[in-house]
Amino acid sequence: MSVIVDRIAAVVGAAGLVTEAAGMEPYAIDWRKRYAGRPLAVVRPASVREVAGVIKICAETRTAVVPQGGNTGLQGGGITDASGTQILLSTTRMNRVRAIDPVNNTITVEAGCVLAEVQRAAEAAGRLFPLSLGAEGSANIGGNLSTNAGGTGVLRYGNTRDLALGLEVVLADGEVWDGLRGLRKDNTGYDLKHLFIGAEGTLGVITAAVMKLYPMPAARLTGIAAVGSPEDAIRLLEIAQRQSGDALTGFEMFSDFCLSLVVKHFPATRTPLRVRHPQYVLIEISDARSEESARSEIESVLAEAMEAGIVLDAVVAQNLAQVETMWALRENITEAQRHEGQNVKHDVSVPISRIAEFIAATDAEIRRAHPDVRMVTFGHLGDGNLHYNVAGPQEVPPDVFMREAAGLTRIVHDSVARFNGSISAEHGLGQAKREEIRRYKPALELELMRRVKAALDPLGIMNPGKVI
Amino acid sequence: MSVIVDRIAAVVGAAGLVTEAAGMEPYAIDWRKRYAGRPLAVVRPASVREVAGVIKICAETRTAVVPQGGNTGLQGGGITDASGTQILLSTTRMNRVRAIDPVNNTITVEAGCVLAEVQRAAEAAGRLFPLSLGAEGSANIGGNLSTNAGGTGVLRYGNTRDLALGLEVVLADGEVWDGLRGLRKDNTGYDLKHLFIGAEGTLGVITAAVMKLYPMPAARLTGIAAVGSPEDAIRLLEIAQRQSGDALTGFEMFSDFCLSLVVKHFPATRTPLRVRHPQYVLIEISDARSEESARSEIESVLAEAMEAGIVLDAVVAQNLAQVETMWALRENITEAQRHEGQNVKHDVSVPISRIAEFIAATDAEIRRAHPDVRMVTFGHLGDGNLHYNVAGPQEVPPDVFMREAAGLTRIVHDSVARFNGSISAEHGLGQAKREEIRRYKPALELELMRRVKAALDPLGIMNPGKVI
Repeated sequence: MSVIVDRIAAVVGAAGLVTEAAGMEPYAIDWRKRYAGRPLAVVRPASVREVAGVIKICAETRTAVVPQGGNTGLQGGGITDASGTQILLSTTRMNRVRAIDPVNNTITVEAGCVLAEVQRAAEAAGRLFPLSLGAEGSANIGGNLSTNAGGTGVLRYGNTRDLALGLEVVLADGEVWDGLRGLRKDNTGYDLKHLFIGAEGTLGVITAAVMKLYPMPAARLTGIAAVGSPEDAIRLLEIAQRQSGDALTGFEMFSDFCLSLVVKHFPATRTPLRVRHPQYVLIEISDARSEESARSEIESVLAEAMEAGIVLDAVVAQNLAQVETMWALRENITEAQRHEGQNVKHDVSVPISRIAEFIAATDAEIRRAHPDVRMVTFGHLGDGNLHYNVAGPQEVPPDVFMREAAGLTRIVHDSVARFNGSISAEHGLGQAKREEIRRYKPALELELMRRVKAALDPLGIMNPGKVI
Repeated sequence: MSVIVDRIAAVVGAAGLVTEAAGMEPYAIDWRKRYAGRPLAVVRPASVREVAGVIKICAETRTAVVPQGGNTGLQGGGITDASGTQILLSTTRMNRVRAIDPVNNTITVEAGCVLAEVQRAAEAAGRLFPLSLGAEGSANIGGNLSTNAGGTGVLRYGNTRDLALGLEVVLADGEVWDGLRGLRKDNTGYDLKHLFIGAEGTLGVITAAVMKLYPMPAARLTGIAAVGSPEDAIRLLEIAQRQSGDALTGFEMFSDFCLSLVVKHFPATRTPLRVRHPQYVLIEISDARSEESARSEIESVLAEAMEAGIVLDAVVAQNLAQVETMWALRENITEAQRHEGQNVKHDVSVPISRIAEFIAATDAEIRRAHPDVRMVTFGHLGDGNLHYNVAGPQEVPPDVFMREAAGLTRIVHDSVARFNGSISAEHGLGQAKREEIRRYKPALELELMRRVKAALDPLGIMNPGKVI
C-alpha cells in the first residue's frame, strides 16, 4: 500500500499529502460525526494536472478514490470506508477564481473555492452568484456541483446544476476533459456536464467550472407572514407568484414549533409577530429598481392575501438588519433542533400542489405509530422541498428514540413515494441513502445508472459504495 | 423486409402505418428539401405502448429507427438515409396534454403536441409556457426536447432542457423508462433526462415530458433601438440587465441589411425608425404588474442608453399590434433572406463579451476571401447566439455561389473555435454537422459520447448516422 502513497507523494509533494491519523481526522469524519472513514491517505492536489496524476496512479493500481470538497455533506458521500485502502482526494487546495467576465455574466472557479468566496468575487464585479445555503461559509463549489446543491435561491435561480455552463473534469482513467465553455447555447452532442453534476464523485472529479452570474438586484427585502395552515401557505405562494413573478426569490415555510425551538435555543431571538400562529412564511422579494419598489411589491402581495383571509398577520423588514434577522430565524432552525436533541431527518420533495396533503397524511400516519413525537417541519415551500424532521418526545432518552428511526423513515419515505415525490430533494444519496433508493427508484432507472457508471468508470474506482 | 413491416403493422394498425411513396414523402424529406430520405416505412404509433412494441421489433431485427417530430429541423436529424431499410417513427399522433397542474406550475405533454398548442394549453390555465420559436406552429415538443431547441425566450427562461422536469422515454431495447416526475428538486442519482434531451433520438425516443410553467406576465412590451455597432448593442444589454433584471425577456439584434431584406420582400413592412442606422435591437420587457410599469421600465432603459450616446434612436410599441409588428420584423428575416436567394447559414454562439469582436474579425476574414458577399447577421444577442449567414453577391447565380459554401463555413467555424464558441448553438448536429463537429470537439469528448451511446444503444439502432 505504501508504494501507492509514495507514488502519489511524487505527484503532489509533501504539501499535498496527509497520512498521520490526527491530520487526516478533519477529512476522515463528516462534520455531523455520522460517518467515520479510515483513508489510506488524504491527498490534496494543487492543480488539475496533479489530480490527473493521482487518478492515473489509482487507476493503474485499482485504488478507490473518494473526492471531497468542504466536507459539509449530510449523506456521507465524501467519506471513505473504514478499510484503510481508499484515497481521500480533497479539492480544497484548488481554490483560485480563474476568471470573471461580467459582460458574459460568468465566473470560472476551481472546485475548492468556498461558496461564500464565489459569492463575494461575483459581488466585487457587481454581479450576483445566487447559490446560497447554510453551509456556504465552508462548502466548496466542487462539492455543490457534485451534489447538485439546492438552498434558498432555487425558486428563482434553480439548483447548482442550472447555474453551471461548463466543467473541467478528471475522468476515472486520469484523462482531463476540458468542457470549460461559457456559452448559453451549445447543441453539439450529448450534454456531458449534466452527468458529472450530481454524481457525487462516482464518475470523475470536477476540478473547475464556469458558473452563471446574474445582475445584482437593487434591493432584497423580506417579510414574514403568519398563516393558518400549509394550504394557506400555498395560496399565498400563488398570489406572490402572480403579483411578483420573477421578483419572488424566496418562499420558506416553518411551523410554530420550529419557531419555538429557535426562541428556546437562541435566547436573543425576538419573535417577529406578537401573536403566535400555526405556520409562518418568509417571503423574499428582489427588485431591480429600488428598495421602495420592493417594499410596495411585498406589501401589495401581503395586502391581497390578508384581504382574502389567507394571511393572519405579517411584518415587513424595515431595514437590512431586519432582513438578516428574519433569515437568521429560518436558518437557525437546523441548529436549534440539534440542541433540542436527536431527530430523524428527511429531505423530501413532492409536487407543490400536493404539499399540504402530504404533510397532513404523513403527520397522521406518524402520530398513529408514535403519538408523542414532535414534527419539525420547515423548508423551501416554493420548490416543494420540505425538511420533514421528527424529534422524539421530550421525556424519552435520545438513544431510545433513535431506535425508532428506521421505522419513522419508512413511514415518511413510503408516503413520499405515494405522492410521486423524491426521498432526497437536495442532499443527494451518498452512502446514507444508497440502499434506501432501491426501494423507490424503478429497477430500470437503476440499471440505466449502472450502465452509465460502467461506461465512465469501468474499473469502479470512483467513490465506490456511493449513489449506485 | 416486409416481414418487419408486417410485424409493426400488427402493433400500430393500419392508421399507424404509411408505406406508399406519396404518403411517406412529407416525412421522408425535410421542409427545406435539403435531405431526402427513403424510409422502409413511416410508422405513427398512437401510444407509448405502441412505440415500445415497434422498438422491440426493431431491436430484434436490428432495424434502424429514425424518430421524427414535426419535421421542422434544420440539420436532417429526423430524416432517414436513402437505403430503404430504416423505419421513420413519427410521434405526431401522440399529441395529448395528459395533465396540467397550475399550482405546481407543470404541464405533462406527449411528444407529438405542437409547441403552439402547449403554449395555448398553458395560457388557458393562466400560465406561461415560455418556449417560443419560428416553427412553433408545426414543431413538436418531442422534437424541441430532442434538439434542445432555443428560440427567443432563452435569455430569461433557458433552453428547452431547462424547462423539462421529467421524461418518459422508450429505450433502444423497447423498455419504457417512466421518469415523468414534476419535481423542482430531486437528487437521487444521475440525472438521466439530460442524456436524452438534445440527443436527437440517438439514445431513445422521448414519448412524453413534464414541462415547467411560469406565471403569465401582466404585460409584455417591446421597443426597437438603433445603435451604431454590435459593441453598442452589448452596452445596451448591460444597461437593460442592470435596470430591469429578470424583466428583460428578449434582446435580439439585426443589421440594417437584414432590415432592408425584410422591407424588400415583405412590402407591407414599415421601417420602425425614420432614419436608418447600422444595427437594431429589439428589446422585450415582461412585467408582472402592468403595461404602464413595463413602459416605464423600457423607457428608462432607453433613456439611460440615449444619454450615454449608445442608442441613436428608439421607438416603443404603443399597443399589442405594434409589439407584434416589431416581432414580425425580426422573425421575417429568415424568410426574406430565402427570397433574396441562396445563402450559407451558420448557427453559432460565442461568449457574449466577445460577440462584437467575433463579428468584426469574421466579417473581415470573409471579405478578404469573398469581397462581394453580403452578411446577413442577426440573432439572440442576449444569449451570445448569432445566425451568421452569408448571402452571395446579387449578380452571381446561386449555384455558382453555393460552390463557395464549404470554404465560407470553414472560415466561420474556425473563427468560432478561436473565440471558444459553438458551431451549433440551437439547431443541433443531425446529419449536417456530424462530420464537421469532429474538427472542433476534443477527441476525448467524442469518445465519452461514443461510450454513452454504446451504453444506452448497444445495437446502434437509434438514429444511426446522426450526432455521433
